[in-house]
Amino acid sequence: MNAGQKATGIVPVPAELVDALRARFGDDFSTADAVRAQHGRDESAFDPAPPDGVVFCTDTAEVADAVALCAAHAVPVIAFGAGSSLEGQLLAVHGGITLDLSRMNRVLEIAADDMLATVQAGVTRLQLNDELRHSGLFFPIDPGADATLGGMTATRASGTNAVRYGTMRENVLALTVVLADGRVVRTGTRARKSSAGYDLARLFVGSEGTLGIVTEVTVRLHPQPAAVAAAVCSFPDVAQAVECTIAIIQGAIPIARCELMDVHAVRAVNAHDHLGLPEQPLLLMEFHGSAAGVREQAEAVQALASDHGGSDFAWADTPEERSRLWRARHHAYLSALQTRPGCRCVTTDTCVPISRLAESISATVAEADAAGLPYFLVGHVGDGNFHVGYLIDPLQPDERELAEALNARLVRRALALGGTCTGEHGVGLHKQEFLREEAGDDAIALMRALKHALDPMRILNPGKIFS
Amino acid sequence: MNAGQKATGIVPVPAELVDALRARFGDDFSTADAVRAQHGRDESAFDPAPPDGVVFCTDTAEVADAVALCAAHAVPVIAFGAGSSLEGQLLAVHGGITLDLSRMNRVLEIAADDMLATVQAGVTRLQLNDELRHSGLFFPIDPGADATLGGMTATRASGTNAVRYGTMRENVLALTVVLADGRVVRTGTRARKSSAGYDLARLFVGSEGTLGIVTEVTVRLHPQPAAVAAAVCSFPDVAQAVECTIAIIQGAIPIARCELMDVHAVRAVNAHDHLGLPEQPLLLMEFHGSAAGVREQAEAVQALASDHGGSDFAWADTPEERSRLWRARHHAYLSALQTRPGCRCVTTDTCVPISRLAESISATVAEADAAGLPYFLVGHVGDGNFHVGYLIDPLQPDERELAEALNARLVRRALALGGTCTGEHGVGLHKQEFLREEAGDDAIALMRALKHALDPMRILNPGKIFS
Repeated sequence: MNAGQKATGIVPVPAELVDALRARFGDDFSTADAVRAQHGRDESAFDPAPPDGVVFCTDTAEVADAVALCAAHAVPVIAFGAGSSLEGQLLAVHGGITLDLSRMNRVLEIAADDMLATVQAGVTRLQLNDELRHSGLFFPIDPGADATLGGMTATRASGTNAVRYGTMRENVLALTVVLADGRVVRTGTRARKSSAGYDLARLFVGSEGTLGIVTEVTVRLHPQPAAVAAAVCSFPDVAQAVECTIAIIQGAIPIARCELMDVHAVRAVNAHDHLGLPEQPLLLMEFHGSAAGVREQAEAVQALASDHGGSDFAWADTPEERSRLWRARHHAYLSALQTRPGCRCVTTDTCVPISRLAESISATVAEADAAGLPYFLVGHVGDGNFHVGYLIDPLQPDERELAEALNARLVRRALALGGTCTGEHGVGLHKQEFLREEAGDDAIALMRALKHALDPMRILNPGKIFS
Repeated sequence: MNAGQKATGIVPVPAELVDALRARFGDDFSTADAVRAQHGRDESAFDPAPPDGVVFCTDTAEVADAVALCAAHAVPVIAFGAGSSLEGQLLAVHGGITLDLSRMNRVLEIAADDMLATVQAGVTRLQLNDELRHSGLFFPIDPGADATLGGMTATRASGTNAVRYGTMRENVLALTVVLADGRVVRTGTRARKSSAGYDLARLFVGSEGTLGIVTEVTVRLHPQPAAVAAAVCSFPDVAQAVECTIAIIQGAIPIARCELMDVHAVRAVNAHDHLGLPEQPLLLMEFHGSAAGVREQAEAVQALASDHGGSDFAWADTPEERSRLWRARHHAYLSALQTRPGCRCVTTDTCVPISRLAESISATVAEADAAGLPYFLVGHVGDGNFHVGYLIDPLQPDERELAEALNARLVRRALALGGTCTGEHGVGLHKQEFLREEAGDDAIALMRALKHALDPMRILNPGKIFS
């Protein structure tokens, strides 16, 4: 998919900048084809668009220097973490320099007494949780990939725990950000709440690298619950599983995870992770609390599930069984890709108010079934957020067109139901027209005004969110 | 207190604007002295600064028209709700027109299935909860005053329930906002989460009317818990009560309210509301959950309290008793004002990371006791947020100076501990220098750039947050 990117606006990086980056960063600056190619793609179905060079940064000062050098030559700058974006956020569609932050992987502080941690932007969620394992605390936000916290901040990521613990919006306390001219600002404090001026941290959360480059993130941590129980419940059809979810949420049961997998997703993870799950739509659930509280929640949910034709719960009792189950869930995307060798995935990401989830999903399933394209459906349904992955043959333009047409119908239905075109993946290159439909021209003008105020030369990840 | 306000920058409102407002709004526009005087003060200790005229608006279109007219003449516009701001936010220090939104008091929608409500900006929190009383839902944010939701949005308000339910930051889903040129934008959707572009809603939350005027607010609602229990626990001293709070939070007990009152505050509410509470520091707590969950939480907290010298809990068992208790807590400010007839209150509002709360409060109490000025202390201590109210004689400049000096020491200590100068009251006229110390010059420059982008003529509540 080309989407007109690279058509205009690419200025070759001036030799003076290349020399200056080489002088400042030595071997940590590369223009090698392989390195550029590696940084010119993400997990989206877009064609690669490599940058003109890559700087491997190790701290905020290096990011600031690299941005200042690029700013002096009005050259685009793109931050790159784990490379797991799904909407083309990392593609250098206007050329420029990519800053690879994956070496910024130090956990700077774990303040267990204050239930917070400060990490460099390149720390991944699994790394942080590994370092937290003896602290009694954990960091709940878990997009499928082992993304970096910088990237998760940039896309306002969430994942399976958001129904109970919120998203990056709720869990970022403070940020260190390099601005478009190389200045460094620190936003937020260690306090849990504040009314001190504009909420700069929330402005950068979800800005996809277009307003500043996040180099350090202070996040809230949460106590590891005294008791955890995970259960699988199969349903006769997707509609019943969704209706059960709506009843759980409207019943105010504080469920920690409530994930839908359709039969295609179940088959894919069975094949990939040898789970032996019944090949039916299912809810994968987790309950957190005291031992009594977990029991109480599970009983209430089992009753609701039975009302909706759900099976008796199959329990994952040990931490190892739970890990295996959730790892499989997080592998759903990759597992599905393997069901059609050579395919790429066009992913949808709508989120609707919970009362409209059943109609949103039912219409989507009917359309996908009628279209005949291979697909799978997984959902953070407790939030009203679900993903359809259409598995397309990238050599068949009509398949891509069909997938995009299905996506467009799905998004427009979500907007009509009061929802959003993207629950957690961001806009990138893919959702720009939908964002305009969702927010309206005046809100887009406002976003552009903010962009212009913070990045008047438009060097920060240009072409993303709006073109 | 004059703080230099009105010293510069006041331009008389041109007669053409007065004529235009009269033509558009008829009797809903007033320049009467009594009306102007009523809109020229708030609950702060600042001297009044009345606007040049007041428009009583009933809907978004009227606000948009009023703003557009003021913009055409580059005249300041200030939004006014319940008048309960504490930091001078409502004072017309550069003159201009105040828009009284208190007639915008319609609850536009209660969507119980989606657990959200949309209200006009002038709806107050008590009004909303009254309309919700048969829905099984409630709106948790409760600053002491019966503030409007527009005003609460503008100051990023919180209150006693924030420890469990979050602040306006977490509970605003969408806003309708009139911009500086009279355009109307709608931000956010009905979905619980979104990654669709910049978080405009969060930018307006806490912007104190300086970036736009909030006219409609969509907020999350929460299920009324199956069981509620409120308890009072007295402690030998403030330090022990705070240490107990820290243990509750670090122990991850999901307490719904955890309020500290010092002995001065207890005496004041005893006198005002005839409560007969023991005249000792106390924690006023509330537990939400299932019946078993509430029992479990209460037992765990009672054990922690006993470890810290706390009394056996005195329970408020019925809804009426609980209401009486919380009404008294919300009256603490007014009750304390009555203990010194003719006084005004200089209020502090720091919030620190929970591990530093004990040292923050202990040093504050020691300084206040040594200074000899009448004061009281109340705190949303579960969040690390507390308020000292210094009760000053406004005719004694040295008392005001002393209170401000105590406040400055308290704020600087909070900043040194990683906290914020304002947890929930906002910056207004009062915390501007502290905001600069907290955020740093570069972050302030960034806030100014945002202000300039959205309000280039600086007509929206000028002189607030930064001058």
